[in-house]
Amino acid sequence: MKANLNIVPFVSVDNMMRLVLHLGVQRVLTDLAAAIETDFRRWPLFDKTPRVASHSDVGVIELMPTSDGELYGFKYVNGHPKNMKEGLQTVTAFGLLADVETGYPVLLSEMTILTALRTAAMSALAAKWLAPAGARTMALIGNGAQAEFQALGFAAVCGIASVRLFDIDPAATEKCRRNLAGAGLDIVACKTPQEAILGAEIITTCTADKQYAMILTDNMIGAGVHINAVGGDCPGKTELHKDILLRSDIFVEYPPQTRIEGEIQQLPADHPVKELWQVMTGAVKGREAPRAITLFDSVGFAIEDFSALRYVLGQLRSLPQGLRFSENLDMIADPDEPRDLYGMLLRKKAATAG
Amino acid sequence: MKANLNIVPFVSVDNMMRLVLHLGVQRVLTDLAAAIETDFRRWPLFDKTPRVASHSDVGVIELMPTSDGELYGFKYVNGHPKNMKEGLQTVTAFGLLADVETGYPVLLSEMTILTALRTAAMSALAAKWLAPAGARTMALIGNGAQAEFQALGFAAVCGIASVRLFDIDPAATEKCRRNLAGAGLDIVACKTPQEAILGAEIITTCTADKQYAMILTDNMIGAGVHINAVGGDCPGKTELHKDILLRSDIFVEYPPQTRIEGEIQQLPADHPVKELWQVMTGAVKGREAPRAITLFDSVGFAIEDFSALRYVLGQLRSLPQGLRFSENLDMIADPDEPRDLYGMLLRKKAATAG
Repeated sequence: MKANLNIVPFVSVDNMMRLVLHLGVQRVLTDLAAAIETDFRRWPLFDKTPRVASHSDVGVIELMPTSDGELYGFKYVNGHPKNMKEGLQTVTAFGLLADVETGYPVLLSEMTILTALRTAAMSALAAKWLAPAGARTMALIGNGAQAEFQALGFAAVCGIASVRLFDIDPAATEKCRRNLAGAGLDIVACKTPQEAILGAEIITTCTADKQYAMILTDNMIGAGVHINAVGGDCPGKTELHKDILLRSDIFVEYPPQTRIEGEIQQLPADHPVKELWQVMTGAVKGREAPRAITLFDSVGFAIEDFSALRYVLGQLRSLPQGLRFSENLDMIADPDEPRDLYGMLLRKKAATAG
Repeated sequence: MKANLNIVPFVSVDNMMRLVLHLGVQRVLTDLAAAIETDFRRWPLFDKTPRVASHSDVGVIELMPTSDGELYGFKYVNGHPKNMKEGLQTVTAFGLLADVETGYPVLLSEMTILTALRTAAMSALAAKWLAPAGARTMALIGNGAQAEFQALGFAAVCGIASVRLFDIDPAATEKCRRNLAGAGLDIVACKTPQEAILGAEIITTCTADKQYAMILTDNMIGAGVHINAVGGDCPGKTELHKDILLRSDIFVEYPPQTRIEGEIQQLPADHPVKELWQVMTGAVKGREAPRAITLFDSVGFAIEDFSALRYVLGQLRSLPQGLRFSENLDMIADPDEPRDLYGMLLRKKAATAG
């Protein structure tokens, strides 16, 4: 073992795509929802801290660390809404897992694709616990990079059969419709948000503009729906009218972070919210009544990324030839004698000269 | 440009060794000291935050982010004193630079070797500003992985000609003496700390045990010396007797971090300290008198890692064939249409099937 500790397996974007296609997107979404649920059920074990953000005029770069005492993980992620207009990703990410016992990294992975998958898996997992029984139709408002993953996640985890699309840019809706054509879902492209929410028991909002927006207004939301608000995920960025929040049972990942970044930044800091992990352990009730409005105020938390990385590492280790989905990075200096770091340089010099 | 944004240059351990040997260790140490000084002189520009630490019974894993508004950098670093006995590095590290404008990473690098170099460069830089004029002899107490880098840094930056070694483990001293044999320094292996400090104008302590240690006691320290205390760098880990601190002018990198991690964790939180960057800008005087005792209470700060990564990136970009010291990592998903992340997966599937 020791001889290979300098090597860190790296899952590139290409290998992540190969791994996801090998397993199947819907299976990965289902597996990720299960991995997140496993970790949410042992929530108190984790080191939790709000993400560490570095803000600039045009965006934010964040580090999201956590640990369960055996593995440590963090994600690097940026959020630059203006990137899209420049042909760049709004969000890019990568992440790492390390062994708490030694501090040595054990996995480096792209996380742009993995974050899209885990975000959708988290949304679907929350809806599994909160949405009205027998929900089959979802409105999907905002048809950008996250949209297809949401549709497939809700199909795989919650049994959604019909998805009603709306975006202020019809080209985004068309892209989404086209990409989902072969997925076995009934896809309806809509011209207004009002049309999109017709008959939907679940309403997902995942728009990208950094502003206080009102994608949904109060009169649009009837009794008995579940709202999955994905796009309100940083200070100054919300999607829902405040009055909707006041009528909803609000569920969050990690309150100290959601109060800064989520829809509830519009509410007083003591407005009651429920923690999803406690719904999963049974300590808190999810949906109180068929006519209740439940709202998952999703911002994304470090434990979800940890779960996703742990899942990928597990696949690399358990799949036959799982390691062919990774490359070996020579990332950790590991001299034969740990105090002889400089000697490693000297030996390299001698070897190069010889 | 856009076409290559998905690719992040990666400097492996092997390539870092090749780059350092190509440039020469002493030149790298000199250049790093200059790069750090440049950044310390523009200190107020930087986003500063104490490191984000995840502690366990056996060690700590930390993230150290900073930004100058154009580049963002962070370092991952662990500290596991018990690792050494298991044949592992006490400290391993890697780091990243990203473009603040887009959030896209521009460099991933090993930092175990680079941290050893920047720590020594920082020590030598502090001594350049604080040590008594004409210092030629340094005591080096603690002859582990950092020792040779310290000796070479002080030789390159401060003109140290004689280094007096002591370690509680004679094998470490012998390793250090052997490694430094061809470096043009007068190397003296000593049997006690008292012997090591004889005639030394600069005393460097860089021991690794995690404990409140007293490598130096008060009666060992005469007037007019500069103490470079490197090893007291986390809560519960100090090297100097408190009485030495009380007689010294204490200089630090970033007070909020040093008060938790440095030698001054032994002192009241309002004990006066001076900030090194202000010495470099001229706002604060360094050495007040020939007989003063100056103490650099070194813990390592994110800006130094930023400087080191910026230096490496500059070398990759400016050296003829600089890029041969890096590999290309496919780390950032970059679909042709930024909203079409899922479409990238679909096209990969089609390409694989075809």
